[in-house]
Amino acid sequence: MDRDTNPQNESSKSLNSAIKDLLRDYNDLNSSTIDELPTEPSPLEFHRYVAQNRPFVIRNAAKSFSAYDRWSASYLTKTLANSPVCVAVTPLGNADAPLRQENGDIWLVKPHETTLPFNEAFDLIRDGTGKNTVYLQSQDGNLKDEYAALAEDVPPDIPWARVALGRGPDAVNVWIGNERSKTALHKDPYENVYVQVRGAKRFTLLPPVAVAGVGERLLKGARYVPKQDATEGLGVEEVGLEARLDGDGASVPFPTWDPDGVTEVGEEGGLRELCRPVRVRLGEGDMLYLPALWFHQVEQECGNEEFCCAVNYWYDMEYSGSFYALAVFARNVANAAIGGTMGENEQ
Amino acid sequence: MDRDTNPQNESSKSLNSAIKDLLRDYNDLNSSTIDELPTEPSPLEFHRYVAQNRPFVIRNAAKSFSAYDRWSASYLTKTLANSPVCVAVTPLGNADAPLRQENGDIWLVKPHETTLPFNEAFDLIRDGTGKNTVYLQSQDGNLKDEYAALAEDVPPDIPWARVALGRGPDAVNVWIGNERSKTALHKDPYENVYVQVRGAKRFTLLPPVAVAGVGERLLKGARYVPKQDATEGLGVEEVGLEARLDGDGASVPFPTWDPDGVTEVGEEGGLRELCRPVRVRLGEGDMLYLPALWFHQVEQECGNEEFCCAVNYWYDMEYSGSFYALAVFARNVANAAIGGTMGENEQ
Ligand SMILES: O=C(O)CCC(=O)C(=O)O
Ligand SMILES: O=C(O)CCC(=O)C(=O)O
Repeated sequence: MDRDTNPQNESSKSLNSAIKDLLRDYNDLNSSTIDELPTEPSPLEFHRYVAQNRPFVIRNAAKSFSAYDRWSASYLTKTLANSPVCVAVTPLGNADAPLRQENGDIWLVKPHETTLPFNEAFDLIRDGTGKNTVYLQSQDGNLKDEYAALAEDVPPDIPWARVALGRGPDAVNVWIGNERSKTALHKDPYENVYVQVRGAKRFTLLPPVAVAGVGERLLKGARYVPKQDATEGLGVEEVGLEARLDGDGASVPFPTWDPDGVTEVGEEGGLRELCRPVRVRLGEGDMLYLPALWFHQVEQECGNEEFCCAVNYWYDMEYSGSFYALAVFARNVANAAIGGTMGENEQ
Repeated sequence: MDRDTNPQNESSKSLNSAIKDLLRDYNDLNSSTIDELPTEPSPLEFHRYVAQNRPFVIRNAAKSFSAYDRWSASYLTKTLANSPVCVAVTPLGNADAPLRQENGDIWLVKPHETTLPFNEAFDLIRDGTGKNTVYLQSQDGNLKDEYAALAEDVPPDIPWARVALGRGPDAVNVWIGNERSKTALHKDPYENVYVQVRGAKRFTLLPPVAVAGVGERLLKGARYVPKQDATEGLGVEEVGLEARLDGDGASVPFPTWDPDGVTEVGEEGGLRELCRPVRVRLGEGDMLYLPALWFHQVEQECGNEEFCCAVNYWYDMEYSGSFYALAVFARNVANAAIGGTMGENEQ
């Protein structure tokens, strides 16, 4: 399907206005800024935010974590030493991000992944002058695994979240990087409690109803791989990387909008001006509740010791009830309404 | 707009399948029966149901209410005596219900309303042989007002609902009728805790995602009024009533589907078979949580003393967050998809 064989008709016009009304209703009924809680919420107070699918931030809430006192560069170096960690390497700080090709196609490019002794990787991050960007972002519950030596410095879960949701976290992840890394706009099916320990993170957030405005496209999966002739003798920070399509030819739907950048793929039928990004900057010790299915783009700033470090708790979202089914519906309708552009990259 | 000038096109076909997928997703992710809780929930447990927008029933939970022990026919007669109450009178037990006219139009007909001494109205309900049906259903927080003499027999609110929702009830209503009354399928913007005291109620429930299947149409507002020549000397139970259009000519969207009856207005594009009514019968002392925006049709059975009596607590729903905006969106898309039939009664 493309725009020419499926011209805008009455029905898709009324769809477009239904989507605009959805965004207008949402904007009318919700604050355009993020709530700041004075203290940690009770489980019930937290559950009200979960039920509304609305984010909040609590300044300084993680200052009681041992990690807040302990996680200096020298402590991390001593504690993790030469234990092997998974390293994401990219030429542009763009791990798991859409990348426009010369022919106009957009690929979703995963980072080059390799394993290094922690100290080596950490030095590359703090030095930050290599050609490539290094990010420790192994998102698979790495606190139990690669970073187990740090586990005692943070609580195993967030008590009010565990009680409210009636379950422990599905994964607890450590993120260590520098300001050259930027996490592209995406969503996760998790209730996310994000804790900043060192440096700062700047989140740009959009609610699930904004799905029609984020430029979701079917992107071919790809990965950065070292160029054949450029690996010899070079460290991961200097090796030449090129994006290569995955063997399986699979495509995944993914947002292509960069809320900070130029609009790459059209104006989405005038919907974008109704999508109002909520911005929040987490400093050291701040905690963010990022609700399930919210789109988020994440940038970072280094702390005094030239690195940025965070821990986050992912709790499975609730699929029963109305919310998840309605969010999927909004996405399907959005893709039907924007006139088949979903398939632009399918060929 | 009608079906002929807006034939099914690609876009409305894909909409139809988006709506079918919504119903299928909902059916896959949710039980087709209602949860039965063994005891009253904690505020947090209740809030999980609110967040999921899912109903439950608690058998015998209201047996501790004084009303359960006290509300015999003689107690009500003695306590309310001749105090004036608002009485809804209809020829078919159909208060606030769609009524098909000879020319095919469907009107939404409100009951004839009058004021009677309680005892007189109560006798008419218990006798139940009049030409017309009498229902005490004044839905305006009547427990504080007409039925204030009964207020001490029930709690002023439901503690776990008040704590969970962070507010008291917007209205507490008493309903007294007999099995000739049937409340037509409709929805309310309230979290509803419904308590059966005498007799039984049979609820037929459909979730908000079923909006495309309930045959919502724009219905002209009307009201039963006594026929000019038929009022003389007759009691309200015998007076001739006819539906008359409201003076303001206003229309309201309203479901026209009777889940128990024949399908009056078409098959809604094959959607209806995916709308699975949940049925629950409340006996004396049972409590139902009926979530906001759920469609409900309600029938009643008399108890030993030939009347049926219930009390319900309406708590304002939460409009912030994603759910309300998404539910309105589903309704707008449904109306766009079923090919303009929404307007069938507009002319
Ligand atoms: O910290 C980051 O770079 C990304 C975090 C993220 O995407 C998440 O917590 O889901
Ligand atoms: O009991 C009835 O007849 C109707 C109840 C109802 O519609 C409600 O509680 O919202």
